[in-house]
Amino acid sequence: MYIGKIGEHGLIRRIQSKFPQKDQTVVLGIGDDAAIIKPAPGKLLLLSTDTLREDIHFKKRYCTFYDIGWKAVAVSISDIAAMGGMPRHLLLSIAVPRKTSVKDLDRVLTGVADITAKYGVTLIGGNVSRSKGGVTIDTTVMGELTRGSGVARSGASIGDLIYVTGIIGSSAIGLSLLKTSSDIDSAPYIPKGSFVADHLRPAPRVREGIILGTNRLATAMIDISDGLLADLGHICEQSNAGAYIHSHLIPLPKIPNRLKRRLAKGPLFYALYGGEDYELLFTIRRKDKGRLEAICKREGLKVAFIGEIVPGEKGITIVGEDGVERKMHTGGYDHFRNHRGKVWLERFQ
Amino acid sequence: MYIGKIGEHGLIRRIQSKFPQKDQTVVLGIGDDAAIIKPAPGKLLLLSTDTLREDIHFKKRYCTFYDIGWKAVAVSISDIAAMGGMPRHLLLSIAVPRKTSVKDLDRVLTGVADITAKYGVTLIGGNVSRSKGGVTIDTTVMGELTRGSGVARSGASIGDLIYVTGIIGSSAIGLSLLKTSSDIDSAPYIPKGSFVADHLRPAPRVREGIILGTNRLATAMIDISDGLLADLGHICEQSNAGAYIHSHLIPLPKIPNRLKRRLAKGPLFYALYGGEDYELLFTIRRKDKGRLEAICKREGLKVAFIGEIVPGEKGITIVGEDGVERKMHTGGYDHFRNHRGKVWLERFQ
Repeated sequence: MYIGKIGEHGLIRRIQSKFPQKDQTVVLGIGDDAAIIKPAPGKLLLLSTDTLREDIHFKKRYCTFYDIGWKAVAVSISDIAAMGGMPRHLLLSIAVPRKTSVKDLDRVLTGVADITAKYGVTLIGGNVSRSKGGVTIDTTVMGELTRGSGVARSGASIGDLIYVTGIIGSSAIGLSLLKTSSDIDSAPYIPKGSFVADHLRPAPRVREGIILGTNRLATAMIDISDGLLADLGHICEQSNAGAYIHSHLIPLPKIPNRLKRRLAKGPLFYALYGGEDYELLFTIRRKDKGRLEAICKREGLKVAFIGEIVPGEKGITIVGEDGVERKMHTGGYDHFRNHRGKVWLERFQ
Repeated sequence: MYIGKIGEHGLIRRIQSKFPQKDQTVVLGIGDDAAIIKPAPGKLLLLSTDTLREDIHFKKRYCTFYDIGWKAVAVSISDIAAMGGMPRHLLLSIAVPRKTSVKDLDRVLTGVADITAKYGVTLIGGNVSRSKGGVTIDTTVMGELTRGSGVARSGASIGDLIYVTGIIGSSAIGLSLLKTSSDIDSAPYIPKGSFVADHLRPAPRVREGIILGTNRLATAMIDISDGLLADLGHICEQSNAGAYIHSHLIPLPKIPNRLKRRLAKGPLFYALYGGEDYELLFTIRRKDKGRLEAICKREGLKVAFIGEIVPGEKGITIVGEDGVERKMHTGGYDHFRNHRGKVWLERFQ
């Protein structure tokens, strides 16, 4: 059955029934002109919006409708995580061609339902509309922030140490594998922890962000969506600083031999230029190193030291185990330019 | 110059420079992972999102880039108005083809700047992305609501009186004129108060909504976006009620003779089925009639009584000056169905 059969308001009722409202902070949820929420007393409010567009951010050839729903919400939750905040409420805007089946739309909603349940986020409203192009999902996530614990991109100072959470590069490897796979359609099961899962169903680092924020550890923070280098570039630009990175300290994924021949590049390439890891890249004061390590141990957080902040005029330098320093262009993904700084990398791979 | 030249981050910087941040409630504005705002103490928060898509909601043939910017924000502000709230902050998500000129993008931003200035709304963030289809603008508006003054769609009771603000139908007449015009491209000047201006640059009824909300006059309220009948249908459905409307009391636009022959229908058709008026449709308790009239006189609000709420099983009835009652299907615009209840209307025109 196509969604044209149930109509716009049938669709909204369908969404309403799939997302029961039991959040005490929601005064009025889905189905009116606007949602009403009660802001948490004394807290600041975080707001972020992001979009997932067919054939720009994903291709249906290697993405299920479930994945699209999951990821559309994940990218906005990750932005809240990158500020040190707790995601709380979601607005979901879906645009689909009229000839979309109700079943496929339900799959999108199940993806949204699963990730919102996992992160304790409540869907409070949104919008459904017809699209003449492909599927587009826009998400806006509202989050709470404890005063004094927010972390902007602009707070890094010379001498600060640079860290990342988790492993960097898996998502881009997953995408690369998906692009070269011929049997994706017949593989509905995506093993958890696989490169493909890392790409299609990222798990934003909300807990990590809050711990780094509330303990006043992170001086600057960003989620890695454009690639480690590009996102480091954003921190450097907004902090008027440069960075010195030890490439051998970047936590890279181990690539099994059977996959190696399917990948054009080594893991460092994907880590630096890939993006969509949704890990956190952050800086701390040098004196907080011990405290960070103690807190990470206590809380079971996996973080890795990868370099330090230097004066802005030095730009971004990467040093390899061979001791050779390379001045970097930040590269990374730019929607309108689509160039990536690939020059020096040939030498690394 | 195409926007591909300045890139995604050039674009964001361009937006930043056009929207200086001087709003005290904005702790962190454009350019980070998320915006941070300080919610007004003691107030509730309103959230609404809407989308404007090329060839679905507008065609570039009869719409300037300025109009697109203006209207994309207007539709979300109107949702806040329909709850009785004050719009405060805006997230703007723009998706455009790579071959969009910087000049055209600037026109969109000027439209956004003008309407946000008019309504005291601050742009705090958003998103820019490439589109493989046409131009799409998504807006999310956050508003403040004084406790106890919010008005949902669901609060109408049997016996309540039904009112509208302003004149209904002008926007659809404007659209109809635009569709049949051959010389739109050569007419950059749109006279204020014209049908075309009503369609392209609607002025949401924020002040009206707040007055109706804070004085606890409106029991149910909605903005007219789908058409008077469809939006009345939403109030009736969510209030489990029906409605009895006097068609001759609906405030209709006067159509000059020179335009009459260019329009296929009479003004009542456009009022009932047209939509995009962004006037408010609301109900009040019968006993509040005198108080409403006094407040409207004092505040200079133009409202018109058009009917009353009846039991749900009676559905929606319209009575003309001829005394003939007609049972209505709510019709109006449905994105996926695209049918409008046109049957009986032939008799009215």
